[in-house]
Amino acid sequence: MDAFARLEATIATRRGADAGSSYTASLFARGRGKIAQKLGEEAVETVIAAMGDEPRAIVPEAADLMFHLCVLLADAGLSLDDVRTELTRREGVSGHDEKASR
Amino acid sequence: MDAFARLEATIATRRGADAGSSYTASLFARGRGKIAQKLGEEAVETVIAAMGDEPRAIVPEAADLMFHLCVLLADAGLSLDDVRTELTRREGVSGHDEKASR
Amino acid sequence: MDAFARLEATIATRRGADAGSSYTASLFARGRGKIAQKLGEEAVETVIAAMGDEPRAIVPEAADLMFHLCVLLADAGLSLDDVRTELTRREGVSGHDEKASR
Amino acid sequence: MDAFARLEATIATRRGADAGSSYTASLFARGRGKIAQKLGEEAVETVIAAMGDEPRAIVPEAADLMFHLCVLLADAGLSLDDVRTELTRREGVSGHDEKASR
Repeated sequence: MDAFARLEATIATRRGADAGSSYTASLFARGRGKIAQKLGEEAVETVIAAMGDEPRAIVPEAADLMFHLCVLLADAGLSLDDVRTELTRREGVSGHDEKASR
Repeated sequence: MDAFARLEATIATRRGADAGSSYTASLFARGRGKIAQKLGEEAVETVIAAMGDEPRAIVPEAADLMFHLCVLLADAGLSLDDVRTELTRREGVSGHDEKASR
Repeated sequence: MDAFARLEATIATRRGADAGSSYTASLFARGRGKIAQKLGEEAVETVIAAMGDEPRAIVPEAADLMFHLCVLLADAGLSLDDVRTELTRREGVSGHDEKASR
Repeated sequence: MDAFARLEATIATRRGADAGSSYTASLFARGRGKIAQKLGEEAVETVIAAMGDEPRAIVPEAADLMFHLCVLLADAGLSLDDVRTELTRREGVSGHDEKASR
């Protein structure tokens, strides 16, 4: 089981935990708007790390982004496998064509 | 090989392609600032989809976000495996503690 | 009349124009989600300009941000005067206290 | 003096204050990256408020966005007057043409 699968499993387990003892549970308790806000904030932090001089600084921000993306997907009844299916669907389609098709 | 691994392999292949024929190559050619900008924009689109009534609408935006995250990581000499390593390092650490440790 | 007031007046005038000939009209026609998306994108561009070496590069991005903020406010039946009223209400309140009060 | 001018004057005054007692001073002390991050986060909150059911909820987020924009401008040696000058320069130019000219 790879780290993303373990991340999703941990999120599923903590979802039902007490919001006071689990950051993950507190996110689900606060609802979609707060989860989406955190995703956006982590993306901003990733952008800022990307503009800095230390490439390694991107890694913890990208990990935070993945965590909040997985929480958002779970909150919407989705998972990374839905994202993988979409990426597989796009394989062999050029990015220029993929964008034009939407 | 899972869809994320194929995505990273495709990005590595297209990186050296002609910017006119490959959206991926054009991103690398435009540089870090433009790649980071696109990541941020896709995160905004994911946030907006998350606030809508149709959960499935999150999926293509999350796929775009993953694509641009992989491009950003590659541009910085990193990969999703660096993110997996960071997530693995955090396993067993509560989110509240993990945030406090930074 | 200062530049922000003229900006809001122009937006009000163009709101009723043809979407094909007016970018402003096209934004209103595409609706709240698209307007919010553009605001978010311009904020990302402002962030990236802020992280660069040329301070003056922030100015056009900040102007784009103000334009899309005014469009968003207008779309919601609001204006910069509502923002000014809120800022006036906060005067004399320290930022630390203001945040704590929410 | 309008509320934006008073906001900029207050920011200039607090810039030299103690970071422990002034949120504004603490922002300047933490530097450009942190200021840009906060601007991005407030934009995300504005986007989320914009997608909600209560238009008035946009106002405090837009006020936060204006505050952090003014801090960012001040940190870069700029002010809202630079943004006003840019907006004035664009007057009479259609948005479609303005975008095409860049």
